[in-house]
Amino acid sequence: MKNKFDYFMPVHVCFEADASKRIGRFITGKNVLIISDPFLYQNGTAERIGQSLKEQDVRYFYHIEPNPSCESVDAAAKEARLIKADCIIGLGGGSALDVAKITACLTTNEGSIYDYYAGGERTLKSRETMLICVPTTAGTGSEVTNVAVFTNQKAGVKMPMVSRSFWADVAIVDYKLTFTLPPAVTASTGMDAFCHAIEAYWNRESVDICDMPAMDAMKLIKENIELAYKEPENETARVNIMKASLFAGIAFSQTRTTGIHAISFPLTSEFHASHGAACAVTLPAFIKKSKEEAEEKMQILADYLGCESVDDLSETIEKLMTAINLPTRLHQLGVKASDLEHITEVGLNAAIIRLTPATMNKDTVCELLESIL
Amino acid sequence: MKNKFDYFMPVHVCFEADASKRIGRFITGKNVLIISDPFLYQNGTAERIGQSLKEQDVRYFYHIEPNPSCESVDAAAKEARLIKADCIIGLGGGSALDVAKITACLTTNEGSIYDYYAGGERTLKSRETMLICVPTTAGTGSEVTNVAVFTNQKAGVKMPMVSRSFWADVAIVDYKLTFTLPPAVTASTGMDAFCHAIEAYWNRESVDICDMPAMDAMKLIKENIELAYKEPENETARVNIMKASLFAGIAFSQTRTTGIHAISFPLTSEFHASHGAACAVTLPAFIKKSKEEAEEKMQILADYLGCESVDDLSETIEKLMTAINLPTRLHQLGVKASDLEHITEVGLNAAIIRLTPATMNKDTVCELLESIL
Repeated sequence: MKNKFDYFMPVHVCFEADASKRIGRFITGKNVLIISDPFLYQNGTAERIGQSLKEQDVRYFYHIEPNPSCESVDAAAKEARLIKADCIIGLGGGSALDVAKITACLTTNEGSIYDYYAGGERTLKSRETMLICVPTTAGTGSEVTNVAVFTNQKAGVKMPMVSRSFWADVAIVDYKLTFTLPPAVTASTGMDAFCHAIEAYWNRESVDICDMPAMDAMKLIKENIELAYKEPENETARVNIMKASLFAGIAFSQTRTTGIHAISFPLTSEFHASHGAACAVTLPAFIKKSKEEAEEKMQILADYLGCESVDDLSETIEKLMTAINLPTRLHQLGVKASDLEHITEVGLNAAIIRLTPATMNKDTVCELLESIL
Repeated sequence: MKNKFDYFMPVHVCFEADASKRIGRFITGKNVLIISDPFLYQNGTAERIGQSLKEQDVRYFYHIEPNPSCESVDAAAKEARLIKADCIIGLGGGSALDVAKITACLTTNEGSIYDYYAGGERTLKSRETMLICVPTTAGTGSEVTNVAVFTNQKAGVKMPMVSRSFWADVAIVDYKLTFTLPPAVTASTGMDAFCHAIEAYWNRESVDICDMPAMDAMKLIKENIELAYKEPENETARVNIMKASLFAGIAFSQTRTTGIHAISFPLTSEFHASHGAACAVTLPAFIKKSKEEAEEKMQILADYLGCESVDDLSETIEKLMTAINLPTRLHQLGVKASDLEHITEVGLNAAIIRLTPATMNKDTVCELLESIL
């Protein structure tokens, strides 16, 4: 147990079936912009939410790509300013929620995202526009973090941005929205949530109060992900995975992530893996590696998850990934031996890699990647 | 597992040894009023904190009785308005923290507490004065709740007040402040925290995400309270009990309490038991009673705490209370058989009693009290 930690997570979480159909009760403003993934506009989900808001004028923005660019952010901000939005609703996976977070700030902060991010020298003033996040994957946990990740297309780099204004006012966690997720997305986002939980748990700056929710999240995912993958409308499985994603999100919102996420950045931006697959692919190897500095704590986790040892946990997770058709080797993502040095370099550039409970340098990271090539 | 819950706990928690000596980093204002228990002013604790605030003008208010009265609140508010306080620091057990919470509101809300509480018809406007809570017992959990309890001396009634403005901006949780607690206070406040945890856990409106911190809190208290009682400066014991109190506070901040607290109100206001003793005395009986509707969940708890059954847990807790010299029978508090009906009536008036996982009416409550007379 640690004798020092901070905890701050001011988002009002509302976890409820069909809560997304009753968002109006939380909104005080008049002009709402719903920022969603394109697919959620096309299939009518965004409009169903918009139509439930009887007291508001609602507009939609859905020009968002996976790993959203700064250009998409600026386009969303332009729309928000145009309609004088006093409430932004983010609806989707991490991309839409992240764009919603910064757009809610830019409504009353002039200029481009580039003024505040990636070398920009201005500082965001407190957000005045209400921000509501509605996740549709179980997954990113973005609804309960103060982080957003954008891709700077000019530099070709994916980088996180952190702001006190990125804590949403309300997170509407409606597991029924995940019933229509394609199995591949259920698999990759679910394992992303597993990574959040384990990276919060073994983090060098772990926060005591988050260890148990993180353990619970991992247990729920281990026991339910295969069922959610095979039976998309299994309510119990969906409730449990959504809960796990939420708990994992709260946990890593306090600690940040570690090597798994650091290495995932080049795998998504250069090899175009989905975020979840890019994280999960190194998970079993990092579990083994975590013994280096966190063996005792990891054994407690292994016991809790019904595994005999940390190595057994690593193998169990690898089997689980195979069962839900996630890649377990880097070559499945198109990575070649000659790429490993570059991936290592980019990964080591991410500050979070130093929160991994093991020595992380060129040699050790390359060796880890070679073991799963 | 439940499929519906809300979670909102916006306090920034800073858990750290000697954090109370470095509060200045959190304060933006200029005029600070430190509201403390009389003893903490007399022994220099309040002044040590005040002297650490180099940038602020600091005044002190310490005319607070246990179960603080509305009159004390109005006196504190008068002082806060006089010095145009822009930051209130509450320092002490629940009484001082509760007075600090309402005083921070009354600084910019005119009139008396009676205008807003106990039949008063005005509604508090948002708090503008910064509020920092520094608990000196491990204990009340008041630093992470939006509840304050006051005694209306006009009516002779102790009643809780709830407000969104009662969430502190910062909770400074410095376990070193508990090193000097008298053993009797360690015992009663520690078991108060145990009651918070178990009442959150078995609550009819329990919140999933708080179950594990609540379980953890109970485990930490069960394993450390005797040591903290016998060795007041045992750092490990103090860290663990302080952590338990915090976790329990966060848990019950989401659920409210149940029958134990409902019955404690007449035991403190009419029989002058300490709050912790008044709660703990019915704890073993309520544990047995909880089987009525929560047997399965309580068996999980019993397992987690290393007990064979729920009844075994009840007996274990009763033995623990005896070991730290807490009363386990009502007659030890001066209660007679002829008082039980009245205590039952007052307890049944508290709305929270209906959150107990068992039928609570005149017959069942009287029977429970008779069993521990």
